Amino acid sequence: MIILFGVFIRYDEESDAHWVEFRRENNITSDIENDFYFRYPSFQDVHVMIFVGFGFLMTFLKRYSFGGVGFNFLIAAFGLQWALLMQGWFHALNPETGKITIGVESLINADFCCAGSLIAYGALLGKVSPVQLLVVTLFGVTLFAVEEYIILDLLHCRDAGGSMVIHAFGGYYGLAISWVLYRPNLHQSKRLNGSVYHSDVFAMIGTLFLWMFWPSFNSAITDHGDGQHRAAINTYLALASSVLTTVAISSMSQKRGKLDMVHIQNATLAGGVAMGTAAEFMITPYGSLIVGFCTGIISTFGYLFVTPFLEKHLKLQDTCGVHNLHAMPGMLGGFIGAIVAAAADESVYSREGLINTFDFEGEFANRSVGTQGGFQAAGTCVAIAFGLVGGAIVGFILRFPIWGDPADDNCYDDEVYWEVCGSFELLQ
Amino acid sequence: MIILFGVFIRYDEESDAHWVEFRRENNITSDIENDFYFRYPSFQDVHVMIFVGFGFLMTFLKRYSFGGVGFNFLIAAFGLQWALLMQGWFHALNPETGKITIGVESLINADFCCAGSLIAYGALLGKVSPVQLLVVTLFGVTLFAVEEYIILDLLHCRDAGGSMVIHAFGGYYGLAISWVLYRPNLHQSKRLNGSVYHSDVFAMIGTLFLWMFWPSFNSAITDHGDGQHRAAINTYLALASSVLTTVAISSMSQKRGKLDMVHIQNATLAGGVAMGTAAEFMITPYGSLIVGFCTGIISTFGYLFVTPFLEKHLKLQDTCGVHNLHAMPGMLGGFIGAIVAAAADESVYSREGLINTFDFEGEFANRSVGTQGGFQAAGTCVAIAFGLVGGAIVGFILRFPIWGDPADDNCYDDEVYWEVCGSFELLQ
Amino acid sequence: MIILFGVFIRYDEESDAHWVEFRRENNITSDIENDFYFRYPSFQDVHVMIFVGFGFLMTFLKRYSFGGVGFNFLIAAFGLQWALLMQGWFHALNPETGKITIGVESLINADFCCAGSLIAYGALLGKVSPVQLLVVTLFGVTLFAVEEYIILDLLHCRDAGGSMVIHAFGGYYGLAISWVLYRPNLHQSKRLNGSVYHSDVFAMIGTLFLWMFWPSFNSAITDHGDGQHRAAINTYLALASSVLTTVAISSMSQKRGKLDMVHIQNATLAGGVAMGTAAEFMITPYGSLIVGFCTGIISTFGYLFVTPFLEKHLKLQDTCGVHNLHAMPGMLGGFIGAIVAAAADESVYSREGLINTFDFEGEFANRSVGTQGGFQAAGTCVAIAFGLVGGAIVGFILRFPIWGDPADDNCYDDEVYWEVCGSFELLQ
Repeated sequence: MIILFGVFIRYDEESDAHWVEFRRENNITSDIENDFYFRYPSFQDVHVMIFVGFGFLMTFLKRYSFGGVGFNFLIAAFGLQWALLMQGWFHALNPETGKITIGVESLINADFCCAGSLIAYGALLGKVSPVQLLVVTLFGVTLFAVEEYIILDLLHCRDAGGSMVIHAFGGYYGLAISWVLYRPNLHQSKRLNGSVYHSDVFAMIGTLFLWMFWPSFNSAITDHGDGQHRAAINTYLALASSVLTTVAISSMSQKRGKLDMVHIQNATLAGGVAMGTAAEFMITPYGSLIVGFCTGIISTFGYLFVTPFLEKHLKLQDTCGVHNLHAMPGMLGGFIGAIVAAAADESVYSREGLINTFDFEGEFANRSVGTQGGFQAAGTCVAIAFGLVGGAIVGFILRFPIWGDPADDNCYDDEVYWEVCGSFELLQ
Repeated sequence: MIILFGVFIRYDEESDAHWVEFRRENNITSDIENDFYFRYPSFQDVHVMIFVGFGFLMTFLKRYSFGGVGFNFLIAAFGLQWALLMQGWFHALNPETGKITIGVESLINADFCCAGSLIAYGALLGKVSPVQLLVVTLFGVTLFAVEEYIILDLLHCRDAGGSMVIHAFGGYYGLAISWVLYRPNLHQSKRLNGSVYHSDVFAMIGTLFLWMFWPSFNSAITDHGDGQHRAAINTYLALASSVLTTVAISSMSQKRGKLDMVHIQNATLAGGVAMGTAAEFMITPYGSLIVGFCTGIISTFGYLFVTPFLEKHLKLQDTCGVHNLHAMPGMLGGFIGAIVAAAADESVYSREGLINTFDFEGEFANRSVGTQGGFQAAGTCVAIAFGLVGGAIVGFILRFPIWGDPADDNCYDDEVYWEVCGSFELLQ
Repeated sequence: MIILFGVFIRYDEESDAHWVEFRRENNITSDIENDFYFRYPSFQDVHVMIFVGFGFLMTFLKRYSFGGVGFNFLIAAFGLQWALLMQGWFHALNPETGKITIGVESLINADFCCAGSLIAYGALLGKVSPVQLLVVTLFGVTLFAVEEYIILDLLHCRDAGGSMVIHAFGGYYGLAISWVLYRPNLHQSKRLNGSVYHSDVFAMIGTLFLWMFWPSFNSAITDHGDGQHRAAINTYLALASSVLTTVAISSMSQKRGKLDMVHIQNATLAGGVAMGTAAEFMITPYGSLIVGFCTGIISTFGYLFVTPFLEKHLKLQDTCGVHNLHAMPGMLGGFIGAIVAAAADESVYSREGLINTFDFEGEFANRSVGTQGGFQAAGTCVAIAFGLVGGAIVGFILRFPIWGDPADDNCYDDEVYWEVCGSFELLQ
């Protein structure tokens, strides 16, 4: 990794000490116009989502909190280095010098790229070894960079918050791996596949940091100015709306109207996933509420009916329910983005706004919004296909008996990979 | 809600795709001058305070952590949608188009508006049902918008951090509700009205995020430039000072000098509440220290003597002690603001600074600082009156036996509203 | 403290209401160029590291979580007030008016200054009383201000993230105190010097917030523009690299390849410490990876071999292992900075970039990079000397029997200084 970085990676103009000269040549009047000040606060919010958000969301199992937060830490730290290289080769390679230049936007993209693999980890939680996770991440990041190149560069889709490239891809990638790695005797660990009171409170830390910072996630790499502003507002509204429908459905579905922590921890976030593509468009505030309203319902029903169905009939064990939180809302988000793009209109966006939002420049200058909508839908399908096929292949690689995966009666148990103390045995 | 948003809510100029044209027409040289970059980092800090800060602060009860953080999540997500509408009607309605335009400042204000109801929840924690909380929030947000309109628009007070409009109002609103809902047999749940070791550590997460981000809370909607800068510094100093006096008083009050976690979790924050109004004024750094010093003492004494007194003699059960953390320091903060405003001086502020700080423009161009001080004091009284009267009315509404509130021996118990696991019974 | 603030401390130009005039006189075109918008997001990240990061990192002991997070809160809140005064006297005293002016950069520096004492607390955790901690902080902040003045102003070193002035100083300061306060009978509390499952999860909150926000820590007070941008990138890479080597070494060192939570909680951060000085230099991305790679290894080996060695042969009890996380990586970071500075080159930095980065202006205009490297190395030695000598003196002061320190069999126990509830006894 160090050698590859040595050969390829350099600072970009805005983080290089030559910035003073670059600034003068480009008539930039002030240091505050360095991209750092546009994006660094959003970067830190995304960073918190990746490490604390995803990490603590996966601490809910009674005896797998170390593995949830610790392996999340490991694979994100590994994935982001590999992502800087892979995304650099596909997006930022300077053909003259053969170098990749990185700045704060590259760091955000690297974090996004890890998110795909972390989502896949959600489906595998407790059933794989850390070495297997590194393999999942290695291939996951590579596949991500390729599908992102196809969707964003070749098909010229817009996908600021990654409904397609992150959530739909990551979700189906994890599900396909989990399907290949099906364990018929997993019921031997059934007693550990649940939470204790305080592990659920830890998981709420993850939920809340994901929920709060999702507007930053969806706006982090959108256009400067109104693009970032609008994406944040839309995501904020969709998320608020998801919470209400999740609570309502969760309460109605249980006998005596009790709420289920699993729904509150997960389905409340579905609105943010589904707004990933459309957040930067002029979807209108009430459009955002409608998206959040519907995905909250769909995601909660997913936890109630789809996950048990998948496990029973499709032999697919999905520990965190990534199907309901990422795969399905991500796919929906991709199609919502296609519809909103196809419905875009110069009277709503203004001529210049339309060009800025969809980046209709260069070879794409004459593309119509209808065509753009079609390409957005095609992009969603590409993401799902990459997830399913790539996941199946990686799953078969992981079935070689060399990776040290846990036995069927040792799943969901930190004792296999961590030094634990005496009182650990009391957690059941 | 979706219909109301559809009819009324639109993006403002800075989040609309027409921004490119707006920027050109208004001679704005760079995207970085979009209000998003002035306020978004502060917005995210406030957002963390509302959801993680308030939420985790209320996890301290041994068997009500789900309810503390979960219902906080629910009512904040509901409240902010309603707040965008209510505040829009009173503050941001364009009389020509009949539309409300929203931007990042609206989101901050919506979060502020929820804070009032969340403070009220602190007094009611463990004794009401989620449906009752939604009613509290519905009326709380509505009352908030009205009193805010009277105080900020009609009386033209300044109240950047909301000592008056948020803390004094929210505190007395919650206390009045709690007083009406007095439960004479609450002692039947007494064994659950306390903490276990780890629930106190969870509550410290809330305390620390509130404490750290309070400078952002008080500076989030102040004037660009020196206003935000000064408000953050003043709040930072007042909070630091509160911590020291809280620890000192807490230690002196207990036998053998031991510290009480309840004081550390709550009274350390009183300095931020009391600086809510005066933070943007030239109160001077040592003035901030004095405010923090005094409120730390008053708030800790409140926990030691006033809360037991209220419960015993006024029949007022205040679970989190919002009287000591919000109501009293908020009221003090309002009067401190009045004094500092009345003492403002051109030699300290400069002529232009005075106009900017107090917004002496338009019909208020000739108001003197003395008059401004009087109006600030009047605003504080308005906030308290709204809280007490509004809270009493809402309390009576909540006494109808249709809301599913818990029985006297089931208070402070998550089992009533949440699915809990087996080990839950061990928490006592 | 209030009196001292009243005599000395004033707002600086950018936080004073005279800012409108100052802006006009200095041809600043927009409010966004107020230093607040350059630094406030970084300040809040640093603030989170000090209070949540350091605080929760020290909650890992099974029965000392209150003390870990609570006393951290106390001494940081005390230290930052004292730091504003001490650093002001040495750095920001206006000789004409006799006043210290403060702005957002002063707040960041005050937080940095506290960090030195909090690091020292890590070595003393569980073995000292809160009064002793206040003494440690009082002297720690004072010594910090003096050594910082010598290193940054007299020797004209660059040390943006404080490898020398914060980590090397703070680490050796704590170790020297702990060495003087050696307790031969500490084994009587041995049963409490360990973690339970959930206390380790709490500590991960601290680890992750430190890890995520370290790029902000190292970039918070670097030059506007490219300086902040580059420092953040370098630190991000070094940290990611540390995580991988820490996991690898931790797994290899244990029988059956199990991971040790102590390593994951601490050694993963060593890369950030070691990049403290060099982060703003053109160390190149692969240089950052190399630094993180090496310090991850060294720090983990420290936990495995050096800490037990120190305890056994040097009679030095280091509760949190600050030697491995702060002292040694900080010292290394200082020397790495010296080497990178000595190797600086106009072709890499450009003439202007070199002047900006090393601040070769005024009396230092003719200093060569080689000389600068020598001074950087000298600065590191000054920091270590201040830590060791200052710590020894403070240690002897703390041996007077007037400070209420816990008995040998009451160490690591919250019951001595906190009111605790009944279930506390079960934690073992």
